[in-house]
Amino acid sequence: MRRRGLQVLVDGTVPLAGTPARPRASLAREVDLLVVVGGDGTLLSVARHAPAGVPVMGVNMGQLGFLTDVTEAEALTMVARVLRGDYEVDQRMTLVATLERDGKVQRRFRALNDVVVSHGALARILDLEVSVDGIPFTSYRADGLIVATPTGSTAYSLSVGGPIVEPTVRVLLVSPISPHTLSNRPVVLRPEAVVCVAISRQPQDVVVTIDGQEGVPMAAADVLVVRRARTLVSLVRSPDRTYYEVLRSKLGWGAGQGRDHAARASRH
Amino acid sequence: MRRRGLQVLVDGTVPLAGTPARPRASLAREVDLLVVVGGDGTLLSVARHAPAGVPVMGVNMGQLGFLTDVTEAEALTMVARVLRGDYEVDQRMTLVATLERDGKVQRRFRALNDVVVSHGALARILDLEVSVDGIPFTSYRADGLIVATPTGSTAYSLSVGGPIVEPTVRVLLVSPISPHTLSNRPVVLRPEAVVCVAISRQPQDVVVTIDGQEGVPMAAADVLVVRRARTLVSLVRSPDRTYYEVLRSKLGWGAGQGRDHAARASRH
Amino acid sequence: MRRRGLQVLVDGTVPLAGTPARPRASLAREVDLLVVVGGDGTLLSVARHAPAGVPVMGVNMGQLGFLTDVTEAEALTMVARVLRGDYEVDQRMTLVATLERDGKVQRRFRALNDVVVSHGALARILDLEVSVDGIPFTSYRADGLIVATPTGSTAYSLSVGGPIVEPTVRVLLVSPISPHTLSNRPVVLRPEAVVCVAISRQPQDVVVTIDGQEGVPMAAADVLVVRRARTLVSLVRSPDRTYYEVLRSKLGWGAGQGRDHAARASRH
Amino acid sequence: MRRRGLQVLVDGTVPLAGTPARPRASLAREVDLLVVVGGDGTLLSVARHAPAGVPVMGVNMGQLGFLTDVTEAEALTMVARVLRGDYEVDQRMTLVATLERDGKVQRRFRALNDVVVSHGALARILDLEVSVDGIPFTSYRADGLIVATPTGSTAYSLSVGGPIVEPTVRVLLVSPISPHTLSNRPVVLRPEAVVCVAISRQPQDVVVTIDGQEGVPMAAADVLVVRRARTLVSLVRSPDRTYYEVLRSKLGWGAGQGRDHAARASRH
Repeated sequence: MRRRGLQVLVDGTVPLAGTPARPRASLAREVDLLVVVGGDGTLLSVARHAPAGVPVMGVNMGQLGFLTDVTEAEALTMVARVLRGDYEVDQRMTLVATLERDGKVQRRFRALNDVVVSHGALARILDLEVSVDGIPFTSYRADGLIVATPTGSTAYSLSVGGPIVEPTVRVLLVSPISPHTLSNRPVVLRPEAVVCVAISRQPQDVVVTIDGQEGVPMAAADVLVVRRARTLVSLVRSPDRTYYEVLRSKLGWGAGQGRDHAARASRH
Repeated sequence: MRRRGLQVLVDGTVPLAGTPARPRASLAREVDLLVVVGGDGTLLSVARHAPAGVPVMGVNMGQLGFLTDVTEAEALTMVARVLRGDYEVDQRMTLVATLERDGKVQRRFRALNDVVVSHGALARILDLEVSVDGIPFTSYRADGLIVATPTGSTAYSLSVGGPIVEPTVRVLLVSPISPHTLSNRPVVLRPEAVVCVAISRQPQDVVVTIDGQEGVPMAAADVLVVRRARTLVSLVRSPDRTYYEVLRSKLGWGAGQGRDHAARASRH
Repeated sequence: MRRRGLQVLVDGTVPLAGTPARPRASLAREVDLLVVVGGDGTLLSVARHAPAGVPVMGVNMGQLGFLTDVTEAEALTMVARVLRGDYEVDQRMTLVATLERDGKVQRRFRALNDVVVSHGALARILDLEVSVDGIPFTSYRADGLIVATPTGSTAYSLSVGGPIVEPTVRVLLVSPISPHTLSNRPVVLRPEAVVCVAISRQPQDVVVTIDGQEGVPMAAADVLVVRRARTLVSLVRSPDRTYYEVLRSKLGWGAGQGRDHAARASRH
Repeated sequence: MRRRGLQVLVDGTVPLAGTPARPRASLAREVDLLVVVGGDGTLLSVARHAPAGVPVMGVNMGQLGFLTDVTEAEALTMVARVLRGDYEVDQRMTLVATLERDGKVQRRFRALNDVVVSHGALARILDLEVSVDGIPFTSYRADGLIVATPTGSTAYSLSVGGPIVEPTVRVLLVSPISPHTLSNRPVVLRPEAVVCVAISRQPQDVVVTIDGQEGVPMAAADVLVVRRARTLVSLVRSPDRTYYEVLRSKLGWGAGQGRDHAARASRH
């Protein structure tokens, strides 16, 4: 890239001699292309800060990821393709979550995978009251609740029984964690749905986690509001594999190929 | 209705003295309002024949249905409201399924809930090959496969682990029945997806079932193609209950109301 | 009971004028019959302290419990029956769990329902290494792990996908919580199995919870050993309902009776 | 074996020049050691005919099976060990199933894996009434019902959400197939339990399948009675792998070894 006269910035936590560094969160806002080398977790820690239109390329270092599906070997070719405009992106939906108290926004987050409400250390059940667009939806007795994007459907939500949602679909996915009521199954909502989550009992030690990365306490008086964000993340697609191929590989699905792979949800 | 000078037709299988009767399938095409009295199964047997724009009102005879959410007591008031134009409808997505051989359509069906491929009596596993938009998706070893609409998400698909999809969402839901590979989880696809299902082995005794109502044999050489139909079904909504209320009631979810209801999928 | 010349002791937290009180844990060791009035949670808090042979009678105050299946109306009759020896008990298996470090037992617990290892507040995954009888069993990436008795099979374990185990069966039930690997299904082990759980990564903020009542931190160097206890809990059975009736009622199963009940796991 | 002066018999369907052949079902009753070469399905087709005490050795031809865990390379060594008495067997529980009408046994079967009641081709729901030891257990609305041994727990039952049961555990496993009521979860019963299954409605086209091998029609007036058989199958264990290793390999579980295997139930 330097040979082409382009300026390269690196994440301050992995300094590179002779290359200017930036904190991870602000890096995304200064560049025209974000190349993330590592696993899905690393990509999540950067991508939700990416402004609209900045392509994000995830390069895995060995193990194929749902978000990092470019291999090390393909990486340089892919960068060259992006630089000459010969590439495609998946526009991935993101979420905006706000913690509100007395109608005032206390904290604001953006998520590419999911926003999770869960209880703390002592394994006691949470009582949550959920409304959608201001209309009472249901109450949950559960270990917690996941509001996920289609991208997040193959992460934590999959581990609790949620469906796989193609990343180009526009929906919100609401999945309870270990629900008390066995018929409390994951629900697929319209993308415009505004999901409000309140704690109805036992408010002690409740945490909201963003993309499995960042956790903040939620108080009894708080309401968590999750909705679709206006900003999409532009994920550079490897031209060499379809989403279905990544899915089959990651989840160990056969496709007439007789291969035996692992069946794993991707969590970070 | 007669007092208002309107013409009333009845289903030929339930004749009413002095009222002209029609076969069920053609009835739907002759009227401006379809009133179905009975359970969800009865509504399914009529509604998928309903032309676009003809409102369908489902009146249950005791037990609330997902599709028949107007009670007997509300029925006359609701009819009056529909006649004066004071009503709302849910536009429900439907499916069109074709059985094709050598590229030629042999049979064509429309479904409001689901199209199911399953094996016959002897409990042997089916091997199915599925593609989406012509791209290989995956192969399944399973008892069968369900392609469902959001409306059908609370029917058979729910029994095999599928998610609940709000009826206003526009997606296709693909759920394997008792899959051999434990990670073969239900998948939510774009509404434009064209799903092709072929039998890759053991072709004996395979059946395609439409809305749990109509079954046709599928031969080894057949391909089943399922896609979104252009025609929607206009389901008259009871103004007295939201979809969420029907859901909570049918699935026995608590909503702070302390009630204890059954957790049942609705199958017909 | 006093009229019969019997001595009555009460739990110190719910004092009764003129009746000697004892702390809950020691109460169980001083009496010949334990009568617990309340829900399953209350019974759990007492029964795991009950010595072998002391019958425990659970009286529910309205809502039928799995463990408290004697109604308020039946309570006095049942007490009279127990006093004259005209009663049956279910011998319920219990667990003994020890937290060990460097081969030394640090803490020892007894459980009637389950022993749970789970992570704390921030929703990060746990890596656990499990052996059975000293033989490597498997590793789990999950929110946690439940080792349950048959009695506990209808509690937390049911919420995470575990089977229902008749309380007279003698087995250990090992159920991962939200496992990363989708094929990590609940496992039923021999009653003599000795289950050892160690933390293989990310040891911060791990907690062991006994019967959903008592939580203790687990350190990276700790090993949790769970095995069948020698002591059984003698639960007085209501002669008026079978275990199957309690099951149908609690889980909303139909038994030809057309009733609609809730499908709920019982958690405390 | 011939060199040692032993007589060898082969299955009549795979004749071997110069070796006497027998029909598969009677072969098992004439020999002192049964060597089955093939997959789990082949072993099932022979082993349930094996008399008590006749060791059965399953040799897989490439893909490790739950029942055929001896590799081709190990086969000759294993045979030699069995001949000199230096081997261990797993005593596997089997089932006896009878179809009874008017209290008379019409048909009698033995199963090593499972006895399945299911409906025929048209995907309509079955209504089944189940009692245990003559006491009403519950009714099911489902695609069918599986009564499995611990050995069968990793076969069809696993595909419908059943737990994994160690083969040395002595229990019956009752798992509904695609149940209408979402709380109808698999149940683990005492080994002495006598499970009776009757058809309560829609009796057309119901089939009972034994070990996925043999299917017989079940009439409306029939009762299916399943109980533990007195005869065990003596499965020769490979000394080179534990049951847990087979489990991890077949289900793709990690055990700190970083391998990626398939997550598959084994069905035949």
